[in-house]
Amino acid sequence: MYRAPLRELRFVLEELLGIRQLAACPGLADYSDELGASILEEAGRFAEAVLEPLNRTGDREGARWSPEGVRAATGFKDAYRRYTEGGWPQLGADPRFGGQRVPQPVSSAMQEIIASANLAFKLCPMLTHGAVHALESSASDAQRRLFLPRMVSGEWTGTMVLTEPQAGSDLAQVRTRALPEADRYRLFGQKIFITWGDHDLTDNTIHMVLARIEGASPGVKGISLFIVPKVLVNADGSLGGRNEVRCVSIEHKLGIHASPTCVMEFGHDKGAVGYLVGEPNRGLGYMFVMMNTARLAVGVEGYAVGERAFQQAAEYARSRLQGRTPDGQAPGPIMDHPDVRRMLLTMKSCTEASRALALYSGLQLDLGAHHPDQAVRAAAQARGDLLIPIVKGWCTETGNETAAIGIQVHGGMGFIEETGAAQYVRDVRITTIYEGTTGIQSNDLIGRKLARDHGAAMSALVTDMRRELQALDPADPAARDTRECALQAVGQLEAATRSLLAGLTASPVQGLAVSVPYLKLCGLTMGGWLLAKSAALAAAGLSGSDQRFYRAKIQTAHFFARQVLPRVSGLAQVVGGGAASVLEADPDLV
Amino acid sequence: MYRAPLRELRFVLEELLGIRQLAACPGLADYSDELGASILEEAGRFAEAVLEPLNRTGDREGARWSPEGVRAATGFKDAYRRYTEGGWPQLGADPRFGGQRVPQPVSSAMQEIIASANLAFKLCPMLTHGAVHALESSASDAQRRLFLPRMVSGEWTGTMVLTEPQAGSDLAQVRTRALPEADRYRLFGQKIFITWGDHDLTDNTIHMVLARIEGASPGVKGISLFIVPKVLVNADGSLGGRNEVRCVSIEHKLGIHASPTCVMEFGHDKGAVGYLVGEPNRGLGYMFVMMNTARLAVGVEGYAVGERAFQQAAEYARSRLQGRTPDGQAPGPIMDHPDVRRMLLTMKSCTEASRALALYSGLQLDLGAHHPDQAVRAAAQARGDLLIPIVKGWCTETGNETAAIGIQVHGGMGFIEETGAAQYVRDVRITTIYEGTTGIQSNDLIGRKLARDHGAAMSALVTDMRRELQALDPADPAARDTRECALQAVGQLEAATRSLLAGLTASPVQGLAVSVPYLKLCGLTMGGWLLAKSAALAAAGLSGSDQRFYRAKIQTAHFFARQVLPRVSGLAQVVGGGAASVLEADPDLV
Repeated sequence: MYRAPLRELRFVLEELLGIRQLAACPGLADYSDELGASILEEAGRFAEAVLEPLNRTGDREGARWSPEGVRAATGFKDAYRRYTEGGWPQLGADPRFGGQRVPQPVSSAMQEIIASANLAFKLCPMLTHGAVHALESSASDAQRRLFLPRMVSGEWTGTMVLTEPQAGSDLAQVRTRALPEADRYRLFGQKIFITWGDHDLTDNTIHMVLARIEGASPGVKGISLFIVPKVLVNADGSLGGRNEVRCVSIEHKLGIHASPTCVMEFGHDKGAVGYLVGEPNRGLGYMFVMMNTARLAVGVEGYAVGERAFQQAAEYARSRLQGRTPDGQAPGPIMDHPDVRRMLLTMKSCTEASRALALYSGLQLDLGAHHPDQAVRAAAQARGDLLIPIVKGWCTETGNETAAIGIQVHGGMGFIEETGAAQYVRDVRITTIYEGTTGIQSNDLIGRKLARDHGAAMSALVTDMRRELQALDPADPAARDTRECALQAVGQLEAATRSLLAGLTASPVQGLAVSVPYLKLCGLTMGGWLLAKSAALAAAGLSGSDQRFYRAKIQTAHFFARQVLPRVSGLAQVVGGGAASVLEADPDLV
Repeated sequence: MYRAPLRELRFVLEELLGIRQLAACPGLADYSDELGASILEEAGRFAEAVLEPLNRTGDREGARWSPEGVRAATGFKDAYRRYTEGGWPQLGADPRFGGQRVPQPVSSAMQEIIASANLAFKLCPMLTHGAVHALESSASDAQRRLFLPRMVSGEWTGTMVLTEPQAGSDLAQVRTRALPEADRYRLFGQKIFITWGDHDLTDNTIHMVLARIEGASPGVKGISLFIVPKVLVNADGSLGGRNEVRCVSIEHKLGIHASPTCVMEFGHDKGAVGYLVGEPNRGLGYMFVMMNTARLAVGVEGYAVGERAFQQAAEYARSRLQGRTPDGQAPGPIMDHPDVRRMLLTMKSCTEASRALALYSGLQLDLGAHHPDQAVRAAAQARGDLLIPIVKGWCTETGNETAAIGIQVHGGMGFIEETGAAQYVRDVRITTIYEGTTGIQSNDLIGRKLARDHGAAMSALVTDMRRELQALDPADPAARDTRECALQAVGQLEAATRSLLAGLTASPVQGLAVSVPYLKLCGLTMGGWLLAKSAALAAAGLSGSDQRFYRAKIQTAHFFARQVLPRVSGLAQVVGGGAASVLEADPDLV
């Protein structure tokens, strides 16, 4: 039984990040902690009551294809209706089109709750949100007026249509064609991996499609972005006839079964009607304006599933009686076995570290976009840009590890599908892949975020982390020890960054052979820093009324510092000395 | 398309381990490298042609339950017939009952090939082999004569029937009752997780069942072992009537779908007829005589699936064109991306390290059982006992990691079931659980294998590893570097062991909080040692005719030393300083 971690979320938002500071930003001035808390409480109630019960059934049944279109699993249509009635799609969208601006960390916290309860469901509004964001920032006024209000309200959904069989991570190879026809285009091409590309939740779906206008140059500079509605929309907003867009099959996947992953055919006769967004040949740029928020959203999914897996494993460990406890005779709960506790604390601490890092990164994006002071905006944007690939890469890798441990805590029962622990492993597996694999994130981190500014943004963050940690002075010994471990990790990150930058200067390819270990090193160290800060805050709160929460916070942070953070040492060695063994390897002999 | 890694297997068996030395042992005197090689070649042909094609279809179809019994997936019955016709079940069994003794490492190598091709299939003969082993060592002559020949030939299969809903890792809680009736017993009880507990491959199945004779004392000292045939066997060996044994359902599992995991009901009316094996109340001891070989077998499964996942990922990485290569313009194979090569080399090197360690451990078991010199036997047995939990724990954890990377190499395609990469992840997931979870293995390692002899067996191994590494003097620089890294790891293992033993002396529970990290530290270090030896051997062979193989061996070993082995540093820190953060944690606050 999932319970939204409301106390924990409020701790991170209010106590660790102090997001009420955002009320000083234009556009976020009406934000208050009370508003955030009430949003999350309401999201928790909805997720627990409506979405979570559909998680297992949706997994078992899956979405189903038919020649008339894809049918969502039982209950999803009703749940989606209640989701829109609750006004959830509006959260985070532009108020001019019916949206409600809230700070990114609040929006991320809400997304976590939805994803914990039902990842497959969550993807539908998430993709719509991405399409909305693309239209908000790049479409014409007329296009916005026609499409946005009903997408923001959730009456219509949206998709992101990028991938083709030969064009995955490498979108330069997109071949879908667009032929001009009066003020619009006719599209022809097959697209794959289209999440919620077709379904029966709504009357219409607005596809944001990458295609190449006839005669455009090859490569990424010849790709344009089109609006392609499933059902044509008349100028007065009423629905017209069906467009030439259809789902020809859905994938049989490892997880997220209730989220239809569609093979979409655009144009089988006259072509699918599409409307150019912005200028020709600038489609990739338009599509990537929301890259940071999309990657942040997937990072959140990683620990959201981890949180759900943790809750279930902890519940099992309290109720399953098995084995003599080290100091007892009768069978006790397996929670009493130190190794089971070690597993659960690994799950819990990695989830808390991931959450703190993701929400901190969301705060940087908000400050970067909204803060009145230009210098603050620039610094926060640079920090957000630096952090996003780390959040996407590390939080999802960690979410996979967490879900896998969840099975292990259950022993043989974990391998049985009815238990539910296996579904989390299957579902979360996609998160290290879509929106750019961990390898892609790590290349972005070292190639664009580190090399381009010669490590300036990273150096600023390292300086801040060290300064903040040095300023902590908790009385609690575990919190003090946590601080020491975090400081040591920061030193290792600094040294590894220096060595990586030196290598990158010598030869850019150097870094590519150790980029994922470096990304993990960053995630661990930054998670350790934020948990050390959390532990110090908790230590200060120990005398108050919420003692149990704060004691748990310290114990979890201390575990992370002593059992998880030491991985930094090995990763630093790999970053420092591991590249040659990859670069000198003969691919023919691999 | 799976290809048995014959050259690699011969390298480990013949060059690294020199198993022809076993021909000096009574009972193994007719062994030669030629015999071993021909067995593996034949196994490879059979696995590639017969078993591998059934791996995906078996996964999709699964075994099916019906009131009349469980039906194996299409093709499995025929494959099993061909398996027995090929004489494969005999391998490793006692020649007195029709078996063929071969060294354990050869038997393990054969099992690897079968498991790589089709893990679900492999479990049926493996369980039979366990039952055969239990009967060989504990049953009466009459029982052996009646059951063994047809189990050794594979005409009948066997099972191991231990678990009950309340008795998983903790067999003290077994409740199945056995009531004496003349020279036999009547059994009543429900058992779960019975691998291949029912099926239509053979006319009969011999269940080895743990039960409690009416009036026996509680706990593990009141458990006896019974032979319970599915179909009763007359004294002349002919089949009689159906026994009261039936499969009431099969589990819906994450993986190994073609291997029926049965809920078995013993006795619904007069009770299932069972024959006591050996003395009453000593059942657990009889069942555990084959614990070392069973755990070794599961360790082998870990890297067997890893090998299969690696082969498929490498094939994909050579054929999938995507993305600009660092130094090229046109789309190249993704193998050219350093991070993809890093992933593949992680898979390959972890598989080779696991294999070397598992086969080395098998050699110790053989020397412990068969060497003419008592002192050699004792030392080898102690080393084998020490290594087996490490092989079981580390090779299966590593196999899980390897299979997961296999999905990642495939990107989005890895998440699609048709690709096949996901099945390896689902299948291998059971290996860290059955035959004792990784946590159970690590407790065995530190509680029984380390604490009991005060670290003597580990200390002897550390001394040997260091001496051997110091004696290596390869001219090849990568092989030299590999040796240095391995030596460093051995030093870290030694220090970690010292600190662990000191903690165990102070309080046994100390070690339980860091036992899995210690087990992984052991596996990594020992794998690094054997790969460093392999690299030195390969360096000496570079001038010969098999240059490509040896160059690959060095490159893989060097990668392991520089990109995988550094994890030892972090694990050593956890072993040294991580226990308190678990032991002081309040379970109510986890």
